[in-house]
Order: sequence, then structure tokens, then C-alpha cells
Amino acid sequence: MNLEDLPIRDDLRGRKPYGAPQLEVPVQLNTNENPYPPSKALVDDLAEEIRRDAAGLNRYPDRDALALRADLAGYLGHGLTTEQLWAANGSNEVLQQILQAFGGHGRTALGFEPSYSMHPIITTGTNTEWVSGAREDDFSLDADKAVAAVEEHRPDIVFLTSPNNPTGTALPLETISRVVEAAPGMVVVDEAYAEFARSGTPSALTLLPAHPRLIVTRTMSKAFAMAGTRLGYLAAHPAVVEAMLLVRLPYHLSTVTQATARVALRHRAELLGTVDALRQERDDTVAWLRALGLTVADSDANFVLFGRFENRRTIWEGLLERGVLIREVGPPEWLRVSIGTGEEMSAFRAALEGVL
Amino acid sequence: MNLEDLPIRDDLRGRKPYGAPQLEVPVQLNTNENPYPPSKALVDDLAEEIRRDAAGLNRYPDRDALALRADLAGYLGHGLTTEQLWAANGSNEVLQQILQAFGGHGRTALGFEPSYSMHPIITTGTNTEWVSGAREDDFSLDADKAVAAVEEHRPDIVFLTSPNNPTGTALPLETISRVVEAAPGMVVVDEAYAEFARSGTPSALTLLPAHPRLIVTRTMSKAFAMAGTRLGYLAAHPAVVEAMLLVRLPYHLSTVTQATARVALRHRAELLGTVDALRQERDDTVAWLRALGLTVADSDANFVLFGRFENRRTIWEGLLERGVLIREVGPPEWLRVSIGTGEEMSAFRAALEGVL
Repeated sequence: MNLEDLPIRDDLRGRKPYGAPQLEVPVQLNTNENPYPPSKALVDDLAEEIRRDAAGLNRYPDRDALALRADLAGYLGHGLTTEQLWAANGSNEVLQQILQAFGGHGRTALGFEPSYSMHPIITTGTNTEWVSGAREDDFSLDADKAVAAVEEHRPDIVFLTSPNNPTGTALPLETISRVVEAAPGMVVVDEAYAEFARSGTPSALTLLPAHPRLIVTRTMSKAFAMAGTRLGYLAAHPAVVEAMLLVRLPYHLSTVTQATARVALRHRAELLGTVDALRQERDDTVAWLRALGLTVADSDANFVLFGRFENRRTIWEGLLERGVLIREVGPPEWLRVSIGTGEEMSAFRAALEGVL
Repeated sequence: MNLEDLPIRDDLRGRKPYGAPQLEVPVQLNTNENPYPPSKALVDDLAEEIRRDAAGLNRYPDRDALALRADLAGYLGHGLTTEQLWAANGSNEVLQQILQAFGGHGRTALGFEPSYSMHPIITTGTNTEWVSGAREDDFSLDADKAVAAVEEHRPDIVFLTSPNNPTGTALPLETISRVVEAAPGMVVVDEAYAEFARSGTPSALTLLPAHPRLIVTRTMSKAFAMAGTRLGYLAAHPAVVEAMLLVRLPYHLSTVTQATARVALRHRAELLGTVDALRQERDDTVAWLRALGLTVADSDANFVLFGRFENRRTIWEGLLERGVLIREVGPPEWLRVSIGTGEEMSAFRAALEGVL
């Protein structure tokens, strides 16, 4: 018997599991991880915290993760409170919960592609119809056209991504405001990479007080250097969090996940201390790629999208042969490189020069 | 603005979040946790394991959790392999993934109530239609009637629960076989409490070689005394696991969850060593309740369903006033008590005598 013989849903037939290849390669610049591991001080603190909490592992965790949500509110600032924060196993689960509450059969979600490829996957995975809006040739979002798309499709959920993945550029607040005002339903601004934005880029968090149908999602996987912890969260009106409580699986966040995230938040000065170095490395990478004569999207994230290559697969494979794994993702003719340490970026530059 | 003002799905309107009250009470016998905390040896081992793994927390976890799945296969035995095992954040997430793959809009799931209340909640949460089949007055499942219900409704998924929650009784293998043979789609046997079954109760795992559309789900929350870890899993044909890979959110299981579950599996002699004591305590509780003249369902689990009370709320509140929290769940006129330590069960008996 094979997968095709099983009575899976029709829209899953012929699909491949989502995800970048998990290859053992010296320089991994493919999944936008933060290259800096946690310090010994953080690791020691975490081991002791787990030792304390482990004594109660026979009991279910706090179903509502109140202490963690309070800590996340404190981190985000903007006057946010526990009642406005919600957390789950990665921002993917947060997005899925949003779709379970506000999407579903007969409902529609609109996004502007190229963008985070999990948005349409999670949308259709919850039986919600996906509608794709367009971006400009430089991957920016034209506010008038975005509003026109919202008015045409009247989606139940709009996805905006700022900074956008895999292109890298943040959205002006003005564009977000106009989309929220035009949207008949919920608007999700996915800010997974917000901490890497260039100076002076405001967060959509500043728009929350005026817009009860706005949801801002974040993650600890990127700037926080905690991809292994799987902690995503959202900030929104308290009623949105009440909606999440209706669809979340009970006890979805384990005791160890809640504890690990709280330890990371206590050590945020250390963890976010790597952001400045990564932003500098990112800006240097953009400049270097442009000096090579390549086309490069403006980046507010910890990755850079560059091109254009008639056969990007050849470039990707050439880099892999030289021990550098980047990501073949996004629009054809483009490739995405995550920002690593200075040493890793030197290896990337040397490998790319070799390939070109 | 309130929750009602948000554009949530119509079937969520007026709903309350699922879950037992989280109350601070001396004797907690309400969520079928194992009352025995992990030993110092386990806690020390876990803290050291987390210390080792934490150094890589900036990286994503193994997306496919291969090492953990191998360990789970080794624990279950029955010749199972890594390719037949799948794990997620609690068996609730495993069940949700099964419904995402095999259910959805236009599809139907059948269960026999009273049973685990999350089955219909997760079913409708994935836009799947829920059909309820009946049990006998003593909560047993009549095999002929179960087969007739399957033939009438032709469900895409059938849920069997053995031992059943909240009633406590395991199913004969013969009933499971007959349902699997009659079912046009997938059959899930939820064995969350299997390790507590009375001697001589075989697991549905023994039926897997003959039935590629059979799925057996398990959890580490009950016998394994790891409710805080949130680790559920399934065993099935490898093609079923391939289907799970199409619907799972990438990196759904964190590094710390995978590590904690693996440490618990290494310490399984200790953790499962509490099962015999709990079974004895369970049998004693059944006998004591019957001696009181109450009606008690046969139990293969770590809880006992007893009744019947014209006003069960009064009994539940009377116990709570005496510091004992049990669960008001299942059919009207019945209450469910989880099996705790000998001391906790003495407190329960004293409190119930006081109330009656």
C-alpha cells in the first residue's frame, strides 16, 4: 500500500511535505536562523529552570500560559497587556489558530505573493480559499492596488508580511492602515523579522489601539535565536485572544516550552544583542552583491534575496558543492541567503565568486 | 468591542473554551494525571540533556523527529519501526493532523458517545461533520450495532476509544476488527489509557499488520506521568505517517519537547513502575464505591466513572468544599474521579462519605 491508496483529502494528493532540505553542510544559510548560539549563562539558567519545573512534569501545564504571555507583553511594550498576547508552538500554529477561528470552508484569505509560503499552505489546510494578490516588480506593495484587491475579493483574512519573506522589505505603516481600513475582516501583519528592520521602521504594533481587527504576529525563532524552542505569539485586541481560546487545543504549550521561552525573555539583552551585528552583516551583503552586478531586494530582515539567474538551480548546487547551503525559494530566477556570522558570510562570498 | 463583534466562524459563536477548571485545590483528581512526580534521577538527567541541547537552540529542531520516533517504536514493540511512528504536541495534535489529512469539509467522522469530548471538538474544528453513534446502557459498545452505524453513515474516519474516556472500559479486539473491516475509511483507536488496562487486555497495536487503515494513538501524559511534556504519538502503516507529513506544521515539535520525551523514554522503568500501584488503587476505588451502593463503570484506566446522582453538581461542589477536585464530565448523573496516590484516595473517600 502507498500514500495514493489512502483516502486522504483530494487537495493533498500529489503534494510533497513542506520544508527546506535538512542537509549536513558546514555553512547553513537556508532557514533564516540566527547563527549565534545561546551563551553559557543562558544555558545554565535554562538547565536550572527545567530542573525546577521538571518536578511537576506529571501535571498538565498552565493551559493559558499566563506568565509567559505577561512576559511577552512586557517585552513588546506599547502598553500591551497579558490579555492582548497569545502564544503557540511557533508562529505557524498561531497562524493556523487564526485561520481556524476566522477562516474555514466558504471563507477566503488574501495575501500578496511572493510572500511566506506557509500562508497559503495553512490557509488551504484549514479549508479556507486562498486568493493571491500581486506585488510590483521590485516586490513592493502598491497601497492603491492592495486596497483595490481587498475591495474586489472582500476576504475574511488579509495577510501582510513586514518585513516580507522571502523578499526582505518592510511595509510602510500607511499601507497597513489603508488595508486595515478597507478590509471587511481580520488583517494579520506577520512581523516574524521585525527586530531586524532598518532604523526608523515602525512596527504595526503602533496601530493596534486604533484597529481591533488587526493582529500582529511575531516569533522567537529569528532575532531571539530560539528556533529550537518553537515559540510564536500574537498581539491584538483582547477579544481576538478570546477567539484563540475557542480553537486552541487544550494544553497546547508544554511546561518546558513555556519555561524555555521565559528564560529566553529574561536573557533578551544577550539574545537581541546579536541583531545589530546581523543587520550590519546584512547591509554589507546587500552592498557586496550589488557591487557584483546582481539585482538585490532591499532587506529589513536577516536574509537577502538576490538574482536574477536563468537557472538558479545551478547556482544553488554550485554553492552546495562548496559547502554553503542557501535556499531556492520565492520567485524564479532568485535565491535567498540567510545572514550568518562574519565567517559564514565570507564562506558564502568565496563560494559565490567561485560559482559565478 | 467583544468577542461577538468579531467575524469568527458561525459554529464558534456562543462557545466556551474547552477545559476543566484550573483551581488550586489540595487534592486534584480531575484531569487523569499520574500523581507521581518524576524522580530526582530523571530530573537530573533531563536538566543535563537540556543543557547539552540548549547550545543549539538557535537552530530549528529535527523536523521529522526521527530519533524520538525510533525510541517510541522501541517502546511499543510489536515489530514497529520509525516509519510507522509519528509524534506531535499531545495526542490532541495527532488527532487534529489525522482529521486534517483524512477529514475536512464534506467528510464525516463517527464516534460512539459518551467518549473523549475532544473527538467531536477537533472534528468540527477541522470542518468535518461529526456523527454520534450510541453505546449500551453500561457504556459498552455492541459490535453489531457499531458495524451497522459504520455501514449506515459510511464515515471517512471512525473513532474508537479503548479504554474509553470518561467511562473507563477497554474494547474487545474482536469489536475493533469488525469495525475496521466494515469501515470505508480510516479507523482511529485512541489508546491514551492503554497501559492501565486490566491484565489480559490486548492492544489494537496487534491488529496493525493486517489493517493499513488502522491508526492507534497514544500519549505520554497518563501512564508515563509526563502531562507537562505534551507528547502524543501514533502507530500505523508507513503511508499514514507520510500523510501526516503533508499536514504537519513544519518544525511542530520543539527541540526541548523531543529531548524531554526521549529522557522520559529512557526512564520508562521508573515512570511505568507507578502503573501497578495505580491499577491496584483503581480496583480498590471501584470496589469501595460499589460497596457504598453506587453504580460504577468497569475501569481499565486511571479514573473511575461513578453515579448516579440526581444532581451531580451538588456532589462535585461538596467534594470541592472538602478540598477534593474531581470532574463533572460525561453522561448526566455521573462523575469521574482520577486515581491519585493512596493518601489522595483516602482524602477522596473521606470527602465523599462526608458529602453523602
